[in-house]
Amino acid sequence: MIILGVDPGSLRTGYGVIDSNGRRHQLVESGVIAPRAASPLPERLRFIHDGLRALIERLRPEAMAVEDVFHAANTRTALILGHVRGVVLLAGAQSSVPVCTLPPATVKHQVTGSGAAAKTQVAFMVARLLELPGEGRPGDASDALAVALCQAQLLGVPATLRAAAVRASRRA
Amino acid sequence: MIILGVDPGSLRTGYGVIDSNGRRHQLVESGVIAPRAASPLPERLRFIHDGLRALIERLRPEAMAVEDVFHAANTRTALILGHVRGVVLLAGAQSSVPVCTLPPATVKHQVTGSGAAAKTQVAFMVARLLELPGEGRPGDASDALAVALCQAQLLGVPATLRAAAVRASRRA
Repeated sequence: MIILGVDPGSLRTGYGVIDSNGRRHQLVESGVIAPRAASPLPERLRFIHDGLRALIERLRPEAMAVEDVFHAANTRTALILGHVRGVVLLAGAQSSVPVCTLPPATVKHQVTGSGAAAKTQVAFMVARLLELPGEGRPGDASDALAVALCQAQLLGVPATLRAAAVRASRRA
Repeated sequence: MIILGVDPGSLRTGYGVIDSNGRRHQLVESGVIAPRAASPLPERLRFIHDGLRALIERLRPEAMAVEDVFHAANTRTALILGHVRGVVLLAGAQSSVPVCTLPPATVKHQVTGSGAAAKTQVAFMVARLLELPGEGRPGDASDALAVALCQAQLLGVPATLRAAAVRASRRA
């Protein structure tokens, strides 16, 4: 099963695509969509939307997961991040890919065993789970891969256990 | 000149289209795009995006203005509103319509003479400026028409005065 994870950011939007059977996972592609920071916001949004649509068209993921954002630094940041997340979710809906949103704590918990894991730890576990060489480097693409891995693992377990896992990580 | 004003909301997105020569303005169409509240967010965003794309395709506005949002009630509200605003700005960028964003105070100031005008006052002046019968009713479409009227008036004055007007309303 091909799974696309997305980590939307106001400047850089990370994506990670993996091929997974629920237990073993393989990297297909990862990267960052970064529009020119000087472009007007509508153009930046178009760039991100176009990029994701092309990616989905090319790699045909069967599931898509996007990190949930509850705690932005402030209202202004939340608003800009919301714009980007809006066009990301739209790209999924337009491509008829089922889109799930995952709380960051669930992603961290599922990938590292701790809902409060540091970014370096997440990157390390992403590299291990995908059997990549090296220690793994934290960054937008690594976060997006963690989202994809979390979704793959959640899809690999029955729905009832899946809901319990999300609840548990929310309590954590 | 056909001008489209949009007032994005987390539940209802108002739009107003006017035909303006910068001094006299005529209503072309106004309404509200309201996706089913129970739909998942990606579907709601798709509904709004599709609605706006179809509207732009049909009425071919030469300019588009969207209300700026600086002060949402809280981060969560800002985030959802950001999602909607994201797909609104995207629809403009995709249709190659020049998109301006206008601070709410500028819109109110330009339409009523006061940057702190009440919604009823804005609705009243929108009805007067568009020579509509009655006193005007406040609502999403009336706010969107105010945005379109503001943009029409700003486009009717030289660029230097326009910038001064925006600055003045920000100080107000």
